[in-house]
Formats: sequence, structure tokens, C-alpha cells
Amino acid sequence: MPAIQPMPLPAETVRLLLSASTATITMQLLKRGFRGLAINGVRPMNPAAARFAGPAVTLRYIPGREDICQPPKPTDPESAQRLAIENTPEGHVLVISTERETRAGTLGDILAWRLKVRGLAAVVTDGAMRDAPVLSELDFPIFAAAAAAPASMTNLHPVEVQTPVGCGGVPVFPGDAIVGDLDGVVVIPRHLVEEVARDSAEQERMERFVQREVRRGRAIPGLYPPNDETRAQYRAWLEAGEPED
Amino acid sequence: MPAIQPMPLPAETVRLLLSASTATITMQLLKRGFRGLAINGVRPMNPAAARFAGPAVTLRYIPGREDICQPPKPTDPESAQRLAIENTPEGHVLVISTERETRAGTLGDILAWRLKVRGLAAVVTDGAMRDAPVLSELDFPIFAAAAAAPASMTNLHPVEVQTPVGCGGVPVFPGDAIVGDLDGVVVIPRHLVEEVARDSAEQERMERFVQREVRRGRAIPGLYPPNDETRAQYRAWLEAGEPED
Amino acid sequence: MPAIQPMPLPAETVRLLLSASTATITMQLLKRGFRGLAINGVRPMNPAAARFAGPAVTLRYIPGREDICQPPKPTDPESAQRLAIENTPEGHVLVISTERETRAGTLGDILAWRLKVRGLAAVVTDGAMRDAPVLSELDFPIFAAAAAAPASMTNLHPVEVQTPVGCGGVPVFPGDAIVGDLDGVVVIPRHLVEEVARDSAEQERMERFVQREVRRGRAIPGLYPPNDETRAQYRAWLEAGEPED
Amino acid sequence: MPAIQPMPLPAETVRLLLSASTATITMQLLKRGFRGLAINGVRPMNPAAARFAGPAVTLRYIPGREDICQPPKPTDPESAQRLAIENTPEGHVLVISTERETRAGTLGDILAWRLKVRGLAAVVTDGAMRDAPVLSELDFPIFAAAAAAPASMTNLHPVEVQTPVGCGGVPVFPGDAIVGDLDGVVVIPRHLVEEVARDSAEQERMERFVQREVRRGRAIPGLYPPNDETRAQYRAWLEAGEPED
Amino acid sequence: MPAIQPMPLPAETVRLLLSASTATITMQLLKRGFRGLAINGVRPMNPAAARFAGPAVTLRYIPGREDICQPPKPTDPESAQRLAIENTPEGHVLVISTERETRAGTLGDILAWRLKVRGLAAVVTDGAMRDAPVLSELDFPIFAAAAAAPASMTNLHPVEVQTPVGCGGVPVFPGDAIVGDLDGVVVIPRHLVEEVARDSAEQERMERFVQREVRRGRAIPGLYPPNDETRAQYRAWLEAGEPED
Amino acid sequence: MPAIQPMPLPAETVRLLLSASTATITMQLLKRGFRGLAINGVRPMNPAAARFAGPAVTLRYIPGREDICQPPKPTDPESAQRLAIENTPEGHVLVISTERETRAGTLGDILAWRLKVRGLAAVVTDGAMRDAPVLSELDFPIFAAAAAAPASMTNLHPVEVQTPVGCGGVPVFPGDAIVGDLDGVVVIPRHLVEEVARDSAEQERMERFVQREVRRGRAIPGLYPPNDETRAQYRAWLEAGEPED
Repeated sequence: MPAIQPMPLPAETVRLLLSASTATITMQLLKRGFRGLAINGVRPMNPAAARFAGPAVTLRYIPGREDICQPPKPTDPESAQRLAIENTPEGHVLVISTERETRAGTLGDILAWRLKVRGLAAVVTDGAMRDAPVLSELDFPIFAAAAAAPASMTNLHPVEVQTPVGCGGVPVFPGDAIVGDLDGVVVIPRHLVEEVARDSAEQERMERFVQREVRRGRAIPGLYPPNDETRAQYRAWLEAGEPED
Repeated sequence: MPAIQPMPLPAETVRLLLSASTATITMQLLKRGFRGLAINGVRPMNPAAARFAGPAVTLRYIPGREDICQPPKPTDPESAQRLAIENTPEGHVLVISTERETRAGTLGDILAWRLKVRGLAAVVTDGAMRDAPVLSELDFPIFAAAAAAPASMTNLHPVEVQTPVGCGGVPVFPGDAIVGDLDGVVVIPRHLVEEVARDSAEQERMERFVQREVRRGRAIPGLYPPNDETRAQYRAWLEAGEPED
Repeated sequence: MPAIQPMPLPAETVRLLLSASTATITMQLLKRGFRGLAINGVRPMNPAAARFAGPAVTLRYIPGREDICQPPKPTDPESAQRLAIENTPEGHVLVISTERETRAGTLGDILAWRLKVRGLAAVVTDGAMRDAPVLSELDFPIFAAAAAAPASMTNLHPVEVQTPVGCGGVPVFPGDAIVGDLDGVVVIPRHLVEEVARDSAEQERMERFVQREVRRGRAIPGLYPPNDETRAQYRAWLEAGEPED
Repeated sequence: MPAIQPMPLPAETVRLLLSASTATITMQLLKRGFRGLAINGVRPMNPAAARFAGPAVTLRYIPGREDICQPPKPTDPESAQRLAIENTPEGHVLVISTERETRAGTLGDILAWRLKVRGLAAVVTDGAMRDAPVLSELDFPIFAAAAAAPASMTNLHPVEVQTPVGCGGVPVFPGDAIVGDLDGVVVIPRHLVEEVARDSAEQERMERFVQREVRRGRAIPGLYPPNDETRAQYRAWLEAGEPED
Repeated sequence: MPAIQPMPLPAETVRLLLSASTATITMQLLKRGFRGLAINGVRPMNPAAARFAGPAVTLRYIPGREDICQPPKPTDPESAQRLAIENTPEGHVLVISTERETRAGTLGDILAWRLKVRGLAAVVTDGAMRDAPVLSELDFPIFAAAAAAPASMTNLHPVEVQTPVGCGGVPVFPGDAIVGDLDGVVVIPRHLVEEVARDSAEQERMERFVQREVRRGRAIPGLYPPNDETRAQYRAWLEAGEPED
Repeated sequence: MPAIQPMPLPAETVRLLLSASTATITMQLLKRGFRGLAINGVRPMNPAAARFAGPAVTLRYIPGREDICQPPKPTDPESAQRLAIENTPEGHVLVISTERETRAGTLGDILAWRLKVRGLAAVVTDGAMRDAPVLSELDFPIFAAAAAAPASMTNLHPVEVQTPVGCGGVPVFPGDAIVGDLDGVVVIPRHLVEEVARDSAEQERMERFVQREVRRGRAIPGLYPPNDETRAQYRAWLEAGEPED
């Protein structure tokens, strides 16, 4: 089994991604022709810890089989799951593909704490997580499709890390940027991360201006999307230091 | 595209509807032979802003197509969505039909704020909403089946306003009363709104009495539904000023 | 219709079950060869009242039929639902099977309060509950697959109590132990309750030690599952009075 | 376990039911206020053997559990399944409720042949059937939601016979009339069987006349549903001996 | 309610469309950037009558409501369904949108025969059809997601014709070309019909050559998609009169 | 990308597997503790070509992405799909994993013919197949969850061959035996193939005897499963040359 090579994103790129909502990022992806890069049906276990961005490390599970899926023993051979837990680099996002199996949790509180201690940015799965009583209060972004008490080996078998996987209907390649907030999780193809981060941050800034105008009672036509006059007002607002009111 | 004619409900009717739970209203509808007027699977984006009542304005989306669903430009022709945003009358409820498409949000924070500023009573969709980080804290009732980051034109195309639509398996005609709380959203056919509002408010009063008795340890038989003796006690309780204890 | 015989669990067994998470209990069940005893898709109506354990009393609904499903009248004959409400013994868990019908609520606020007053441990259904505005704040564990405004007789008909039922894909026999927390609900076959309770409590103790080590930065291999060295450290920690730090 | 009492329908009633389509029967049920008595999603294993009518005997399965669901042994105690196989009376329809579990077959070729030899009218399940290679050519009406190779004890446990059950979302009481054709299966409440049979046969006769007119090019308005003039023509056609052309 | 204007396709276009499979047509649509124009989950009621092509007329249903959905009477006012039955022009395809409601049939044998007599090209619905015993043998293309015995007014209410609708997840505009075969149904946007018809017919011709080569044992690389050498061979084959062997 | 190593099964093993139904094979698997090795929801495209057995070669797809999923060109680099088409050894079964994506077909008529010409035993996918008009008449076993017109690159991207995959909820390892008939497809873990084949063939022989007895009117108890007396009769029947009557 290959070691996991770090594929870090520039710190500035991560900062820009964290300044933008996933809604804004998907608009930038749509402008580039991508309609299917928001993972369906995942939500943060702890809504207060939903904001993250980082490069993907993948872990792939297949359905379990009774003879190879048994309660863990210290003498078990190395598995892809164990490899991912101990080797996913700091700042990366562990993306766990399960073919949407939600009857068993992919991780529980002990492994989640280990990943938090190791400095990962987040964990995302289209399956379930267990130990929701702990995870729902943990200051670590974990996105899943459900909570489920049974351990992973009840219905799932880990196969490999760092191959392309599907997660909630979205293709994820190792190194793609993964970003999350309360709307869910989006995937940015690696070769587009920097331009999407830059343009998303700019779109956020523009929409702060639009939002201010809306709260003041202005109508949508001409404002959003902005016509030339609105763009001029926006530039003036930028030059004025982006006043909140 | 026709203008949107206001179909306001009497203020007293709205007041009565707001005094009753959707559970009570569905019982009044069942008494009139209606078993299918609770919209399935919608929840408030902000549980603290779940209570509303008002007449329906409808907006209908169909699945999107790549050539006509593109990022918005200021030169785009008028659309049914834009019409609904700027013309749904104050106090009305915008009901958005999507055939349960939840991969894209029908509205985001900017349009939601616009509707709040314009004085709508609520927005309800059997699809998704985007910008959950904002909407989950907005003091404006928005019910949806999911949160999703992508903008509506990713998968949806607006067609028309003010035609009868399906929403989460329920028929909605313009002017029907729409009422929501934490149980979800119910639809009251227009011609029945006043009697349902009146009888629901009365049922709520009766159930406050029943609830008091239950908390005091009384058994259900004879109490709920009330027999003649209980009805007499209820009348006495009404005459006594509806004491809480 | 037979009376409901109490099948109480020893108080110590209940205490041990309440000390363990459902995640831990499913691991003990997996060790005994059971992979399918976590009820799928149910969540607490009030997340702050999610913890419970007790023996099952079952109530079974079938789909409704218009002629026999009408608004309740005080002259209605005794029903299985009424029997369950007034006869489920104190400390027991009422398990309501609906074949996953979530368009109508199985119980509302009045009956839920009655069950709370009568001292039940909890209510669990693979269907829905109504009156979420009240239930979401009630200090009484109620687990359901959804909230729904319509009353049970809208789509459901009660048939019998205390027969084996399916609940969310899991077989439940009267007297089985039912345990819940934020991960959902698990079912422990009656003849295994005491050993599963005992071993779950012990596993919880061991995992508190493991969790402490993980928070201190220790890696997973050799720790979890524990090898001989870790087991020795665990015994020392026990002898030291299980220090938190 | 109680013996299975025969609840035969009059031979003439069965004859009338067999002369009507399930589409016609559901219209007669709708005229009496029933909208939900067509079992969803079941199809004949052998489309050439889809036509049947008879009174229901019910068999109820719950989800399986590993310890009580094992390959069969000759020393197994009597089960509800065995009871149904050997005691469902001739001419009756065995209705098997599974909560829509289709991963295991409720019956296979050996038990299906036994039921055919014993003279049952049909078997209907909202679960699956196994041995499709044999059943798809067997001259015996078997309706199921799917074919599946695994035997019933893989995922299902038989509980009881002759209690009210749900089947594909429809309530079935022992003795209800069950009728099938290529549209699926409908359930007629016992107390309505004779009038529904009579009126369905008459409706079929009327629709044969309508069908003849349509094939001759006549338009639908006034013809279907028939106005007074069409009714007079229909009576003339009846008096003429119902000519095909 | 507006009359239904014919939007006929040129006879040569229909001929070309009928010469191509829906698989080939979707490839031509993909080449033009369309990924979502195959209607999901519909199949021919009679597999021997699956081939058709023609322009769309739309009919839209919403979920039913008990008071307005009753058994038909000759005095019922004109409905959108009746209008579609009697006014959809010859050679057109009636596309019926139901939001995927399959518990009731949109049409039965009498109306299907009427449409066949009136010369329609086909009927397509994302809902169900009733009277499968007749329709499965009728020489008229009818595509549906299911068979179901109940009549449309059991769960559905007709609203309007000739507006854009969704059908099985695909947008359909009046006048779009609709084409069906055993793979299901595809929708071609009106403004692209002629070029897609032309290029699909040419692709079919090319694939007949490829298919011949494959049957002779030739490997796929270089053949499919064809490289320059294969294209030259193809041209020679065309010049030789497209020999089968 | 690694070459595909043949993992042939002994000819006698294949012969035994072809003599047994998948229903019988799943019983032998259940006797060894396996409850989840029947692939859910797949059916033969051509029911007359449903019988096959052979060792698995796997091909894994993930969801598609617009930039890497385009109509094929002769200059495209080698893909996992192409590798599987041209290198899966004779007699093997190509198992295609798609995470149950049925909106696009994994293979069409040209590639299916290529696999037939190359001598594969069968193709199985939990996704869809296109060109059903051809495949439904092809004398080559192809099992899929659906037919769909769009080509694979519309929604799917091929990633790798010969890794463990999930297919319809079942784990498939390269070299596992795959067997199909009208009940669907079952997977036999490689290390158990020979004993399962042997015992399945023996069970089939025994069930032919049981089936004969049932057709003669014998009751099920004591016959199936067989008690000692029945076993003796069975041995006598074997010694008599297995007479049909």
C-alpha cells in the first residue's frame, strides 16, 4: 500500500476558500461548466464546526462480507482505514467513499479525536459516523450523511487510499480542494483551485455590497446580477473601504 | 406574464391560524375529508422562525437544460423567478414547486433578504435552499427539503407563476392558505380557510384544557376525545377564565 | 386483547446500559454475531432528551383505510393504541411499528405527555410524531423518523400490542432491551441483555482510557484495539482510580 | 397458533371478479370513497398466469435476526410459514407481508408447487420470490415486488397468520377479496365484495360498448363517462346481444 | 384554455429519427453539450410497440385533492386531460407530467384507443398507465414508469396543456422532438431537431460498419471511435453499397 | 495499469455451478454464514440468455465530471474501460461497479458484441446498459439494473480494473465466482468456490427428488427439509436412476 504523499494547497488559497461560502464556490464552478460538484446529502455532525477547506485524501470502502469483517483485534494486518488514520497529512481532508452505506459508521469518537489531534482539516463521508453524542460537540469538522451506532466492520470493508472515488455522487481525486459549510461540501478540481479561490473571494466581496443594498430596500433588477451602474457603485463602495452601512 | 394579484386573507383569519398548530389544522382538514394536505419532508431553515400563515403565490420550476440554464447576466430577459421575487404581495407565502429537486437551491441569501424586506410571510419549497449559513439565522420563515450550495440555474428552470402546482406531494392553488410550524407545512383550500381557522382555534383551546388534565394525571379514555362529562368540565374551565393550573 | 405484562429489567442492568453508548452496545452485539440490530433512520425529537434504556412493549400499525380511519369519537371501541397508551408499564419503552409510514404522526403532544406522566422510559417509532413544537422541548425521550402534522388515523390503523414487530428494519420482541442516544436506537435480544450490559459498561471504561491516550497524542496501532502492553497500562490506570488526566 | 378458518367467497362472486379488470374494480372502490387499495409495485412472476380472485389468508414476516434465522432443519418447531403453506384453504389467496423486504425470497419453487397442488388461488407478497427460473413458467399466479435468490430465513422471520397486515402500503384483513391482473393486485374490503363484484361486472360490460364506439372513431365527450343518449345506445346494444362489431 | 397548435416535424426528419436508436441520439446531444435529456425510468407498456418519433404536446397533472378529484360524470366541465385527448394533433406525442406519481394511471385502455384512433405517434408519462392487460398488447407506443389499476382522479388532477413541463427529470417544451425505443425516451430541443436527426442517421450508418467489423473479430482500438484508417475503410464500405457481410 | 491475469475456474466447477440455481447457491452460502452475496436489483437484458458462471474481473467507475467526460476520440489515452474490454480473459465475467448510477449505460451494443466475440462468460453491472433493442436479443448474458440510452461518459468515468469493488451492495473481489440466472446474480468468495459448487449440485439433485414428491401431493413437513425417512427414500431414488416420475 503506497504512502500518502502530501498535496498541500498554498496557505493563501486556503484562506481565500475559507472566506467564501460553498454557494459562491459552486457559482464559480458553474461559470466554468461544472454542474455536479456539490456532494449530496452530507451535513456537519457539529453545526458549530462546519467551516473547513483543504486538499483531499481518499479512502474507499466496499460492502462488507461476514468472514473478513469481524471485530478488530490487535493482530489484524494493516488496513487502508488504519493507513488513512495515521498517514493523512496535516491540513488535509479525509474523504471516505462508502457507496452511501449509512447502516454503519465509518469512524467513531476515538478515531475522530486521533484525526483532530493529528491536525487534519476535516473528514467527509457519504456514509455515516458513529458516536454522535461526542462528535456533535467536537470542535472538528466532520460531515456525514447520517449517524449510526454500528462500527464500520459491521457492513463495510476498507480497500484502498488515494484512488479516485465517488462521494455522494461527486468524483473526488486526491488533491482536489474540499470545502464545507452549512450548505454541505463542494469539490474543486485540483487544476482550478487557485482561480476558483480567487474569483470566489471577489464574488463574496461583491455580494456583501449587494446584500447591503438589498437590506436598504433596493430591488433586484440591475442589482443582482449587477449592471454597469451597480458595478460603478460597487467600485465606489470598495474605494470607500467597504462600509457596512 | 400576468401580474400577481393580491389575494389577502382577513387579518383575523391569519391571527386564528397563527394560534393553531399545523397538527390541529390537519385534524380539521381530516374532519372535512382531506387526508393529503401536509407537505412532505420540508423543514424550517431556521427552527426559531418556523411559525407563519398566509395566502399562496406559486412559482413553478422544471428541470434545467444546459443551453437555457447559465449563470445570470444583467441582460437576461425577465423570468418567472424574478417576477415572483419582485411582485409577490406583502403578507403572502411564496410556494416554489421543483418536483423535489434538491441538488440546487431555489433561492439564496440575497433573494431571501429581498423577500423579507418586501414583507412576505414566508417561502416554502419542496426543493432546496442555498446559503444555509445565513438562512439558518435569518428571522424569516423559509421551509425547504434540504440545503444545497448550487444556484437554481444549475439544475432548474423557472416557468410560470400563479398556476396550480404540486409541492411535496400536495396540490397548491394560488390563494390557498399556507401555514407552518415545526411539524412542517399544511395547505388549506381557499374556500375552507375561514371555517378551518375558526374551528382550529377552538380545538386548540379545548386541547389546552385536555393538556392541563393530562399533566394532572388524568387518563385518556373519556378525556380525549372528550365525552359529555369532560365537555361540561371544559365549559366550566372556560367560564373560569381558562386557568393554567 | 391481552393485558400488557410487565417484563422489567433489573435496575442494575438499566444502570449499566445507560452508562454505555449505543455505539458500544452494537460492538458487543457484533461480537455475538449480530449485525442488524440498530434501528435505521430514527432520531430524538428533543436531542436534549435522547438517553434511555428499558424493555420493549410493541404496538403495531398497518396502513389506514378510509372507512375505519376517521377522526376519534368518545364512543370509539377500545383500540390497540389506547391500550398501549394506558397499559404500557412504567419504565418500559413503547416501540411503534408503522412499516415506515411517515405521512402521519403516530402520537402527538397529549398522548406523549400522558406517557411521560405514566412513567414510561421512552417511545420509539419508525414512523413520525406530530406536535414537534411541543415534543422538541419535552423532557421525555421520543425517537421517530420524521415529524408530521396529520394525526395517526389519517394513514394508519392500530392492530395489536405485544407481538413481534419490525421497527426500521430491526426485529423487536416484547421484552427486548431498547437503548437510545444521539446515534439512534439499538435492540438487545432479551436473553443477552445482562451480559451485553455488563460487557458494554466494561468496554466504555476501557475506551475512556483509550480516549485519554489519544488526546495525549498516542497513535492508534497497539492502542485500539489494545495489545498486551496497552492492556497492562489500562489495568494500572484502573488501579490508579481512572484519572482523567 | 390458531387453525386457519376458511372464509370462502360465493362462486358467482369469484366469477364476477374474474370478469372485471383491477382497473375497473378500483373505480368501483373509488366510488365508495377508497383511494388506497391497490398494492404498490407487485407484478406477476409469470405474466401468462396473472388473473386470479379469492379471499385473503395473511402471513406476516418481520426482519430476521441471526440467531433465530438459520438454514432449516427437520427438527425445527412449527412456524407460521409452515402453517400457512399446509393450512391455507383451497381457493384462497396467501398474502405475505414483509415490510417490502426484497433481498430474500419469501417462497421458492418447492413451496410454490405445494401451494399450487393444494389448490390455492394465488400468492401475493410485497417482498420477493425466489426460483424465478421455475416460477416464471409456472401456471400459478404469484405476484411479488422482485425476484431474489436468497431463502426467506436470510433476512426474514415468520411471526403469525391471519392478523391484519400491510402489503405494499395497503391494509389486508383476513377474508378480504384479493384480485390480480397485469395492472397488479387490489384488495376489496370483505363487507363490500359482493356489491363491488356485481357493479364491476356491469361496468366492464358498459366499457366493452364504449370501447367498440371508440374503435369506430367516436369522440370521448358524451361517450365516456356516458351521457343519457349514450346510455340509451348502450341499452339498445345490450338488447341486440352485445355485438362485437 | 388555449387550442393546441400543431407543431409538425418534416416527414424526412421523422424518418431519420426513426432510423436512429435513442442511444445514438443521446450521443449527438452529448456532442452538443446536453447530458440530461433521457427520461429516467420509463418503459414501453408493449415492448413490441416501442419505436416512435414526433413533436411533443404537454399535459400537466398535479397531486389530487379529495373534493376536486371524484369519479367522472358526463356533466364535468372541460378539463386539460379531455382537451389533450381530443385535440393533440395527429403525429404528435402526448407527454404527461405527474411529478412521478405512480399510484394511479394517467390513462387507461379507452383513452389510449382514442389516441391511437386519432393518429397520435405515442404517449409518454413519468407516471403510470392502467389497463396493462390491454395496453401490453396494443399496437401503439405508450411509455410509462409503471402500471397501476387506479384511475387518474384517484391521486392526480389535470391542470394545463402546452406549458413547459418536467417528465422523469427532463425538461420538455411543446414542440420538442420525442423519440423512443427499448432504451427509453429522449427529448431533442426543437431548434436542434433537424441537425440531430441528420447526424444521428449518419452515426447509425457508421456504427453499422463498426458493428460488422466487430463481429468479424476486429479489436476496438482504432475502430471505435474510428481513426483515419477506419474512416477510409468506412468510406470504401459505403461506396461498395454497405454490404452486410 | 496492470495487465489482467486470468484466474480461471476448473471446468468441472463451472459445470457444477451451471447445474445449480442461484437460489440453491445462496443456501449453500447461508450455511457457511454469508447473508449478503446476492447482487440487488440486476436482471438479464435478454431473459433467454440469463444462465452463466465464471470468475470475476472488475471494472470500477466513479461519477463523471464535465471536463474529463467528453465524447470519445480516437486519440483518447488508454482507459480502464478499454483495458477491460480488450483484456478480460475468455470465460471470465466482467463486473462493472457504478455506485448504482443508472442514468447512463456502461456498455452498448458494439462493446457488448466485442465481449461476446472475445468469449467472455457474461457482463454484470449495478448500473445500466444501453442499446437494449440489440442487447435484449443478443445471445450473451448481460445483467444490469436498467436500460439507459446515454453513453457512459455522460455521467461516469472509468478508474481502474481488478480492485475489489461493490456491485449492487455486494463485495466482489477479482477471481470470485459469479453466477447468474433469472433470480439475479450471486457472488461466491474464491476460496469457497469448489465446495459451494459441489454442495450446490448435490442440493439440486436432492431438490429434484423433493420437487417430484411435492408434485405427487406429498406434504412439506418431513419432506423439506428432509427427515431421516425422506433421506432414505432419496437414496433409493438415486439408486433407481433418478426417475422423473
